[in-house]
Amino acid sequence: MTRLIIATDLGGTNLRIGAVTPEGKILKKYFIHIPSGTDSIELLKAEVSALTESGVKKGWQVVGLGAAVPGVIDILRGIVTESPNYPAWKNLPLKRILSRTFHFPIVIENDANAYAYGEGWKGAGKQFRSFVVLTIGTGVGGGLVLDGKLWRGVDGMGGEIGHITVDPDGPPCHCGNRGCLEVFSSATGITRMVREALQQKVKSTLSEYVGQGDRSPTPYNVYVEAKKGDALALRTFEIVGKFLGVALADIINLLNPEGIILGGGVARAFSLFAPSMKEEIALRAYDAPRKRVKILRSTLKDDSALIGAARLCFEEIKKAPSSSRGRQGQFKR
Amino acid sequence: MTRLIIATDLGGTNLRIGAVTPEGKILKKYFIHIPSGTDSIELLKAEVSALTESGVKKGWQVVGLGAAVPGVIDILRGIVTESPNYPAWKNLPLKRILSRTFHFPIVIENDANAYAYGEGWKGAGKQFRSFVVLTIGTGVGGGLVLDGKLWRGVDGMGGEIGHITVDPDGPPCHCGNRGCLEVFSSATGITRMVREALQQKVKSTLSEYVGQGDRSPTPYNVYVEAKKGDALALRTFEIVGKFLGVALADIINLLNPEGIILGGGVARAFSLFAPSMKEEIALRAYDAPRKRVKILRSTLKDDSALIGAARLCFEEIKKAPSSSRGRQGQFKR
Repeated sequence: MTRLIIATDLGGTNLRIGAVTPEGKILKKYFIHIPSGTDSIELLKAEVSALTESGVKKGWQVVGLGAAVPGVIDILRGIVTESPNYPAWKNLPLKRILSRTFHFPIVIENDANAYAYGEGWKGAGKQFRSFVVLTIGTGVGGGLVLDGKLWRGVDGMGGEIGHITVDPDGPPCHCGNRGCLEVFSSATGITRMVREALQQKVKSTLSEYVGQGDRSPTPYNVYVEAKKGDALALRTFEIVGKFLGVALADIINLLNPEGIILGGGVARAFSLFAPSMKEEIALRAYDAPRKRVKILRSTLKDDSALIGAARLCFEEIKKAPSSSRGRQGQFKR
Repeated sequence: MTRLIIATDLGGTNLRIGAVTPEGKILKKYFIHIPSGTDSIELLKAEVSALTESGVKKGWQVVGLGAAVPGVIDILRGIVTESPNYPAWKNLPLKRILSRTFHFPIVIENDANAYAYGEGWKGAGKQFRSFVVLTIGTGVGGGLVLDGKLWRGVDGMGGEIGHITVDPDGPPCHCGNRGCLEVFSSATGITRMVREALQQKVKSTLSEYVGQGDRSPTPYNVYVEAKKGDALALRTFEIVGKFLGVALADIINLLNPEGIILGGGVARAFSLFAPSMKEEIALRAYDAPRKRVKILRSTLKDDSALIGAARLCFEEIKKAPSSSRGRQGQFKR
């Protein structure tokens, strides 16, 4: 029988799910859109059940669930303290909720941490013992791997690279701070900067994408127009790179890592933001750690968090094979 | 025979030296001023020799040298890559230089790292497994202790908290960046801010301290006048606290530590800068890790780096007692 972990990666609008082997191979995976108004946790439970049941018929032995979740996670207790994508989640006991349905070990992890762990196991981080991952999508997530181990902070709340202050007087962030990296160097930041420029009548081919009401050009529209040479679109990615550079210089000076891995949708525009990012790092970081650090793009991309969450669950089972199963059992019967 | 480490803490203008027991007690210590134009390394060698010789007469067994040094240190090779206090030191092979004179194990460590390790062993950090130290003096040094171990980065060049960018368009820093924490929240920063304000004819009792030529009020003068209620002096410490808050919020969001320990001369003005520092942290850091972290003043103060450097040398000896002595011996005879 093939031992497998069901791994999930919950985003704001999509759920990814896969069955992962102890070697890090994904046997089956898919993603589904989360229609607005849907209870994401109910959907997650339904999909995990369905994949488990269909797997059992194929002879899989499903031994655990690794769930990557956006937001600040209290890792020890399996609680989602807060989540930018799910504002209603305040101290949500997700692990306990899931363990009512699933009778195998469950690991809840911040999605960027899971992503980092996946890249370290099977992706661009394989060559490093100490590296930092940024997932640049709707927001900016961060994961730190130091000397082969995920550094989550003492309560599992560290790694919030997206909320490093890069401009102390910058625009407000949903986290309560202002001038966070995420305010500029994210899909949300790109959309905001372009919308504000167009409102100020900056000339740009992007104005053609403005539709009825509030509709603004998407980050992909901005990417396409930048590739065609539109000045506003190019300038927007330059700012994305500039503030990424400010934050990465901080990280290089503070942690002196071997590598920095960039993932998430916005990282696909690497060629557009990399020049200003590198320029800013060269200006701000010490020479020796700057020359040492390799800045790479993720290689597993959309699979990183699934593979990382699965690995974390396999390790959890290995650490306490009987006790964690026993504990799960006690909750159930 | 009492086994002892000779520990040194080299600053820009002073050398501290002490003899430390395996229990972290300092049996003898003193500090001497380094007259300008003096070769600091020759002075260090002379003082270590003198203390060792006087100790041997008392029956000490000097088993090693732990040297805390300002600057970026390549810890594995014992090389000072660069040092703000000693601009001429570029890739200086300090360990090799010292081992020509001293025939016992030698550990070279960044002064802020040694300070952090000392606080963790015998000072305010005893209660923590994971904490961050800032030494706020002429510059701002940083040391990270994560899960009981010094995190130096992969090349021993991490921990440069003083060079986190807190204002991307701020004044230039000697490191090549602009708007570093150190530009504002250090003795140098205080002196600069007051000098600039007085040049702009800001009314302040501090103008009484301006002497012939370029002489500006010292940070101590600013402290004294702030205590008396001078608005410029108070405002200066408010800025010190504000930018400390920006950097500490980054660290709280990134590392989620149990504690932050503030040492160095400027930390004596804690009551003056703490309000704006705390306000800024409350604005910028996530609630949960902010409420968790304890911000304390160092308890060992001037002894922290000596005690930390000694501890690191004791550990080095314990790790490889024969090999490291043997290696030292081979270099010599």
